[in-house]
Amino acid sequence: MKRIMLTVAYDGTNYRGWQIQPNGETIEGILNRCLSELLGEKIEVIGASRTDSGVHALGNVAVFDTESPIPAEKISYALNRSLPEDIKIQKSEAVAADFHPRRCASRKTYEYRIYCAPFPLPTKRLYAHYTYVPLDAALMRQAAACLIGEHDFKSFCSVDTQAETTVRRVDSIEIRVSGGVTEDSADRISQEIVIRVSGGGFLYNMVRIIAGTLMEVGRGHIPPEEMRRILEARDRQAAGPTAPACGLTLVGIRFEGR
Amino acid sequence: MKRIMLTVAYDGTNYRGWQIQPNGETIEGILNRCLSELLGEKIEVIGASRTDSGVHALGNVAVFDTESPIPAEKISYALNRSLPEDIKIQKSEAVAADFHPRRCASRKTYEYRIYCAPFPLPTKRLYAHYTYVPLDAALMRQAAACLIGEHDFKSFCSVDTQAETTVRRVDSIEIRVSGGVTEDSADRISQEIVIRVSGGGFLYNMVRIIAGTLMEVGRGHIPPEEMRRILEARDRQAAGPTAPACGLTLVGIRFEGR
Repeated sequence: MKRIMLTVAYDGTNYRGWQIQPNGETIEGILNRCLSELLGEKIEVIGASRTDSGVHALGNVAVFDTESPIPAEKISYALNRSLPEDIKIQKSEAVAADFHPRRCASRKTYEYRIYCAPFPLPTKRLYAHYTYVPLDAALMRQAAACLIGEHDFKSFCSVDTQAETTVRRVDSIEIRVSGGVTEDSADRISQEIVIRVSGGGFLYNMVRIIAGTLMEVGRGHIPPEEMRRILEARDRQAAGPTAPACGLTLVGIRFEGR
Repeated sequence: MKRIMLTVAYDGTNYRGWQIQPNGETIEGILNRCLSELLGEKIEVIGASRTDSGVHALGNVAVFDTESPIPAEKISYALNRSLPEDIKIQKSEAVAADFHPRRCASRKTYEYRIYCAPFPLPTKRLYAHYTYVPLDAALMRQAAACLIGEHDFKSFCSVDTQAETTVRRVDSIEIRVSGGVTEDSADRISQEIVIRVSGGGFLYNMVRIIAGTLMEVGRGHIPPEEMRRILEARDRQAAGPTAPACGLTLVGIRFEGR
């Protein structure tokens, strides 16, 4: 028996999230089915991050145990042959038999992508949230600063959480802007804003609520200095809306001591 | 009667190209249908670039004539309400009554996008051609240089062309590389190569055959100094394969004197 760790990339558009649901296809469900067929054993993966319906990943992580003689690093190749185009393993490797991706301290990085322009761009629609409202990235950076560190993020957590504590550690929030006037395409004034958040784990919908609140700051509806009060309120009602799932991508997870 | 010019963006994944076909949905067909419904007249657009099935656009151009009192620049807003998510107008404006987007001298810019990594990435699959073979961009740049200028591009044209002449002018070919080792996602060594080609019009499949030939150079199958001989052969058989449609995007079109 050995424990295998998979790094899993997916386009979440056509799935009801990571975790197995009574109705609809999930990433976890498809991995279990394809792995069980490949290895001839009943396989149930343990996922590091149970991403929501519509959220994408470049590097989510799952582990499972197998008796298979297939070398750990070859499982990626064999499994990718049966996985659909929108789920692909990026790496497979052996890990310690007691390694558990949700119990091990880790640092996760998410990106929330926003496309601002007078009209939506079809080739961006699946991986960025569209808004026609211009956003001021400088205001967003100012507001984001007070979220860095260990805080009670109850204001940034969906009310139906089952988490024991709402204290989390945010290591960094970077806000990058690209675009401007694009010469080629009819002088469209467009900008793409990427909010990149790293931390030691996140509450349910936390990154999307941070993104939704920063967008309210960026459009001038919430002054940046209000962010501290929102954080201290420990009340979901104080923060902005939950930004749509399609803009969110789990970039990667680093496990401590690995 | 006035002539309106539309700048049209689309995700070509689900269409049989620009031009109306007996079977399957096309960009032109959908524009004609939505415009005719919106304006209450029978509208038939004239497209600048009849892109192939699966090819994308940020700024293709179409013109049509209408009696409608809707101001030219408002047509984009009204039309986008009835267009599907994967076709969106970026701009609408009035043009001279005799402006014809295929008879007017223009400069078109295309990008061909290639994603090279050990495994495909689901969120890139629709807009980049995937290969696991690493490509040497320096060799590709060296080979591309001899294509700049006015040449007979018969070697880079699908044999079933109806073009009167196969002489075309290529103004520039830039090859940009991004990526490398990505720290977040399991140390995947990945690179994205964008071949950006501008010129005064292109033969059928010309950019995709240039991209396919440059990929053969980049992987070491064709020495870069062979490119001149391929061009001079005036024979489709001398060049490399036609690269897949999904990697190609029509970035924009500039019309002379506009």
